[in-house]
Amino acid sequence: MSGSTYGNIFKITTWGESHGAGIGVVIDGCPAGLSLCEEDIQKFLDRRKPGSTQFTTQRKEADSVEILSGIFEGRTTGTPISLLVRNTSQRSSDYSEIASYYRPGHADYTFDMKYGFRDYRGGGRSSGRETIGRVAAGAIASKILEELGITVTAYTEAIGPVSINSEHFDLEEARRNSTGMPDADASARAEDYLKECMANLDSAGGIVSCVVKNLPAGIGEPVFDKLDANLGKAIMSIGAVKAFEIGDGTKVSSANGSSNNDSFCMQDGKVAKKTNHAGGILGGISDGSDILLKAYFKPTPSIFQEQETVNRNGEDIKIQIKGRHDPIVVTRAVVVVEAMTAITILDSLLQNMTSRMDGIKSFYTK
Amino acid sequence: MSGSTYGNIFKITTWGESHGAGIGVVIDGCPAGLSLCEEDIQKFLDRRKPGSTQFTTQRKEADSVEILSGIFEGRTTGTPISLLVRNTSQRSSDYSEIASYYRPGHADYTFDMKYGFRDYRGGGRSSGRETIGRVAAGAIASKILEELGITVTAYTEAIGPVSINSEHFDLEEARRNSTGMPDADASARAEDYLKECMANLDSAGGIVSCVVKNLPAGIGEPVFDKLDANLGKAIMSIGAVKAFEIGDGTKVSSANGSSNNDSFCMQDGKVAKKTNHAGGILGGISDGSDILLKAYFKPTPSIFQEQETVNRNGEDIKIQIKGRHDPIVVTRAVVVVEAMTAITILDSLLQNMTSRMDGIKSFYTK
Amino acid sequence: MSGSTYGNIFKITTWGESHGAGIGVVIDGCPAGLSLCEEDIQKFLDRRKPGSTQFTTQRKEADSVEILSGIFEGRTTGTPISLLVRNTSQRSSDYSEIASYYRPGHADYTFDMKYGFRDYRGGGRSSGRETIGRVAAGAIASKILEELGITVTAYTEAIGPVSINSEHFDLEEARRNSTGMPDADASARAEDYLKECMANLDSAGGIVSCVVKNLPAGIGEPVFDKLDANLGKAIMSIGAVKAFEIGDGTKVSSANGSSNNDSFCMQDGKVAKKTNHAGGILGGISDGSDILLKAYFKPTPSIFQEQETVNRNGEDIKIQIKGRHDPIVVTRAVVVVEAMTAITILDSLLQNMTSRMDGIKSFYTK
Amino acid sequence: MSGSTYGNIFKITTWGESHGAGIGVVIDGCPAGLSLCEEDIQKFLDRRKPGSTQFTTQRKEADSVEILSGIFEGRTTGTPISLLVRNTSQRSSDYSEIASYYRPGHADYTFDMKYGFRDYRGGGRSSGRETIGRVAAGAIASKILEELGITVTAYTEAIGPVSINSEHFDLEEARRNSTGMPDADASARAEDYLKECMANLDSAGGIVSCVVKNLPAGIGEPVFDKLDANLGKAIMSIGAVKAFEIGDGTKVSSANGSSNNDSFCMQDGKVAKKTNHAGGILGGISDGSDILLKAYFKPTPSIFQEQETVNRNGEDIKIQIKGRHDPIVVTRAVVVVEAMTAITILDSLLQNMTSRMDGIKSFYTK
Repeated sequence: MSGSTYGNIFKITTWGESHGAGIGVVIDGCPAGLSLCEEDIQKFLDRRKPGSTQFTTQRKEADSVEILSGIFEGRTTGTPISLLVRNTSQRSSDYSEIASYYRPGHADYTFDMKYGFRDYRGGGRSSGRETIGRVAAGAIASKILEELGITVTAYTEAIGPVSINSEHFDLEEARRNSTGMPDADASARAEDYLKECMANLDSAGGIVSCVVKNLPAGIGEPVFDKLDANLGKAIMSIGAVKAFEIGDGTKVSSANGSSNNDSFCMQDGKVAKKTNHAGGILGGISDGSDILLKAYFKPTPSIFQEQETVNRNGEDIKIQIKGRHDPIVVTRAVVVVEAMTAITILDSLLQNMTSRMDGIKSFYTK
Repeated sequence: MSGSTYGNIFKITTWGESHGAGIGVVIDGCPAGLSLCEEDIQKFLDRRKPGSTQFTTQRKEADSVEILSGIFEGRTTGTPISLLVRNTSQRSSDYSEIASYYRPGHADYTFDMKYGFRDYRGGGRSSGRETIGRVAAGAIASKILEELGITVTAYTEAIGPVSINSEHFDLEEARRNSTGMPDADASARAEDYLKECMANLDSAGGIVSCVVKNLPAGIGEPVFDKLDANLGKAIMSIGAVKAFEIGDGTKVSSANGSSNNDSFCMQDGKVAKKTNHAGGILGGISDGSDILLKAYFKPTPSIFQEQETVNRNGEDIKIQIKGRHDPIVVTRAVVVVEAMTAITILDSLLQNMTSRMDGIKSFYTK
Repeated sequence: MSGSTYGNIFKITTWGESHGAGIGVVIDGCPAGLSLCEEDIQKFLDRRKPGSTQFTTQRKEADSVEILSGIFEGRTTGTPISLLVRNTSQRSSDYSEIASYYRPGHADYTFDMKYGFRDYRGGGRSSGRETIGRVAAGAIASKILEELGITVTAYTEAIGPVSINSEHFDLEEARRNSTGMPDADASARAEDYLKECMANLDSAGGIVSCVVKNLPAGIGEPVFDKLDANLGKAIMSIGAVKAFEIGDGTKVSSANGSSNNDSFCMQDGKVAKKTNHAGGILGGISDGSDILLKAYFKPTPSIFQEQETVNRNGEDIKIQIKGRHDPIVVTRAVVVVEAMTAITILDSLLQNMTSRMDGIKSFYTK
Repeated sequence: MSGSTYGNIFKITTWGESHGAGIGVVIDGCPAGLSLCEEDIQKFLDRRKPGSTQFTTQRKEADSVEILSGIFEGRTTGTPISLLVRNTSQRSSDYSEIASYYRPGHADYTFDMKYGFRDYRGGGRSSGRETIGRVAAGAIASKILEELGITVTAYTEAIGPVSINSEHFDLEEARRNSTGMPDADASARAEDYLKECMANLDSAGGIVSCVVKNLPAGIGEPVFDKLDANLGKAIMSIGAVKAFEIGDGTKVSSANGSSNNDSFCMQDGKVAKKTNHAGGILGGISDGSDILLKAYFKPTPSIFQEQETVNRNGEDIKIQIKGRHDPIVVTRAVVVVEAMTAITILDSLLQNMTSRMDGIKSFYTK
């Protein structure tokens, strides 16, 4: 009920604070018989690891994952998979000062109001390190989807004012550079922009896009658990996301029906759509086209400029934040968006298996 | 699991099709002792009723609600409240033709893919009439919030290219006119735009804004059930919504930390914020400022122009939709956004009661 | 959260009070494509209907069910099925006196403590009429199970001191007589016993047994959602049940491993068990044998003898209950046990579909 | 959905196999501000630790708990508490043989049917070691209940044919001896009986009783989440439990209303009951009396006598189980029953806080 669990069938529960003993996740409902090893998970964690580029916090963490349960002889057993990443680089002293005041843009004040006190070291539970559990679970969800032929791919769409040009789209470039942008030219300009921000002791926002390919039509539920509603929650639950779009997103509000409707057509003997303004979802259910979504991230709230705020004694004060902070959230958040999308898509696929009598009958009377 | 239930503590389950016997909702978890009568609910339903202006479907429905359970001597008993609205204006013949093909922008195709067949009359379960249950439940949630001093207010922010001017903001105007815009001037221009759309056999999109006032700080959960994540799901689950924003929304992606951070300050002896870019939520938890959100609606997919599509036999065809259809979703959706917001806020408030030992102790040892 | 919803995938929500407008249930998650009509449900409701024998309350109710949603052209659509039974025989005046005091063995006092007041007419929500919703939903679950070749059958095992003799077992007898006992001889003795109880202004307890046949091995979850744990909850949630047994039940506490273990053996080329002390469940998962369970019901608390109790003013008083009351709960509860068992078994079957990668793959890549 | 999570508000998720890296639990929804250290949990784990008496497996495990998250400066933070117990005594070779066949009374066959294969080492997930997570979580629930003045106490009621005499009741005796019986004389006789069982290469069943004191009236939900239904599930979910009773349990079936009804009476100015046949629950809601429940455990299925069974190749075989096995489940299960009861009671208490408008209003407008 405190909301550290996500998913209905493929159900993940994350735990851990930035400066506690470690961070982890328990995945309950992973189907039995999936080949899985630590390397499958580690390669996702490495994509969000700090310290790899000039634009990420200089905190160095191996973030090595240990599988504690749920795997036997290299395959999932169907029982809970418990994953543990020990925290190793906790310079808590950096944070001792922030115990006494509320950093703008952070959850310090709201945690105090909710719980009466807080683990102030590195943001405690509200730290971006919480996403380690999500990414680890997402690695498993992605592996299952892959076996079904479905791919989930996220990338940086924009950093501050710099957007990618879809004509230059090159996903391998995105996995190589420091921005996660699938466009070498835009990436170079974004790097310049980020350096400028850092020079100004400031930070930048950005956009992450995600595309799901080969999802069959018919996935998602028609009312409250619409596929886009569940994706909306999944993405909005990532810290710093302030807006979510599916398909054409905000643009639909100024469109007309005649331009916004996607015409159906036959293509290679199958039903297809001529356009994809809808982003692959109609009435909350997948239509067989690519699922297209976007997440808008705010700039890192920890900036090194002097800021005004209040302390726990109720006094107006001025503060200057120290420590290790990324100038941008987006670059490391790409894999988090991918993970949350994969988990949500997989969960919807699993839920869908019980939708029809014919499917149930053929499952049980084969 | 099929997702017709929403909420954890204040839990609603909607049912019903456009052309079935009726539409309804069961509310489980409504606290005992709330004064409640049918009129409390009817006045919300009347705000979404068709046939009231030139821009809503000419289908005339009284949409009269009957309370079937959960009330005794004018007060809620704490047991489920079952609400029923009979369908009375089912001109099913209008829809017989659409049984054979897939309307662009509608859920016809996706329902067929999911379930193998569909109740094609008026869109069946995917009809906007499904929201009657949401609005009825939202009326009750709003009444409870009101008793706690919390208000939830939605209005039309934009219709097509016409946006309100916040300097002219007048909520009473919004409740009076046909657009739901709290700005008489913008409303007049929006009416002209809608008439133009109708003349072109076309439809328009728009934006609904919602503000929650007087919500205490500390409400919401810090990880997956962030208050903004839950609001995101609530709003995205409304048919035709393609984007969701909290606070500055999409704009944060091009902002800097220095401009986007809201400084805390003391005001009348209390912690406040100088600005509200965050929209009242930090780290998923309310900060005591107004909660500000926006929902972007696509244009009504039912337009009277000729459209291309396919039929159930897998043939490319051209169709011309008949029947009764609003040229815009937004005007009648305002109260739906308000309802889903109220339900979500109330549910978070109730969940929050168990967050702290001191609160639990004082509750049970008074 | 208030617990009027049961099931994870095949999810039912009941509502209604004894003397309100009606009683009903919403079933969400019923698979699409099941042939279903009101008669399928009515025949189950008729099995719990009052007024049919000398041992049931003389309240006459047609208890006619109306399907409000979820069926189109004779088949389930996959969307919520809403069922309504109007209350027609509310002689509320019979109950007006009990508003002021707490009947022994009833929930009057506990409702007042929980909610601050109560709908005292006929027990309100705590009335046995609440089970109408369960039985209606159970009729649908049973129909689905039947299509998979699985049967669920409950019957009266004992009434007061009179038990059936398993050598006389005759299920058709059980459906014919007034006790629900599948043994004509025991039934006749039980009738005599009940008449004696009535002559003494007293009531009797009893036992309901239920057997599930043809459930495949492998159904149920291994930890908290053990099949027997879920059945235990399902059965204990029926009013007046005070004990639940699976297989040999209480007898296992005085058995030895050597006598209690069921040996596996090959039978017709399949794994079978020589005995079934376990009642068909090992480690929370079905083993392919019959599922055997028992529910122990207390005597009807409403008796016509003078009883001691207290009133709402905190005074010791003596009362004499009037009105219409069955001298035994068991006879009408048989179909309720059957319904709750069927719902639980079906829900477990549906959950089990996502247990294995090979099952998922063959479902999605056929 | 795979059922490794239990509870609605105080929500626990257990993971781990007998011979994997470790066993653990994540508790989400523990209120903030509870003083908590490892010793609070360890003392509960020590009560179920193997190797402490002649009647428990000679496997020696320290079962030392490590708190990985959720505690800061000695108090719970309101975020998930992750607890880890490393497995240290895995003599897997003992178990290699059982990979090929199905032990009677164990979950070997059912796991294979469900998942296609199993972690056969020590029973894998179906091992009694799974309960470590339950006991650790139960320690925390008990501590919270204690702060509210509520106590939960379990003890051995019977071992095989030997039952305690309630006139000799001495709880401290139960915590001291090897049987967990609060009666020195019965305990001595039970020891003799167990030695006899061991000499016969056999095992014994037994009964665990549990009593909850000082629970206020009004706790529990009236329909599916009746307090006794939830307790029934909690207890039936413990491996080897085959029957559950509340209050007089199975005896009610042969009682009459006149003897089974508990009369209310005024006592010290408060409503009380003259007797407690109901076991403290009426209509699913606590009535202020002691909650009384019993769990019936089957004999340990691992016995050293030769047994008949089948192997994975479908051949009838004879087996002789080796390894380390308790001759009785009950003695170590006492603390598990106590833990599951405490968790269930606490969860119901927390849920109840939102039952009434007056409680909510006074919470939020203090």
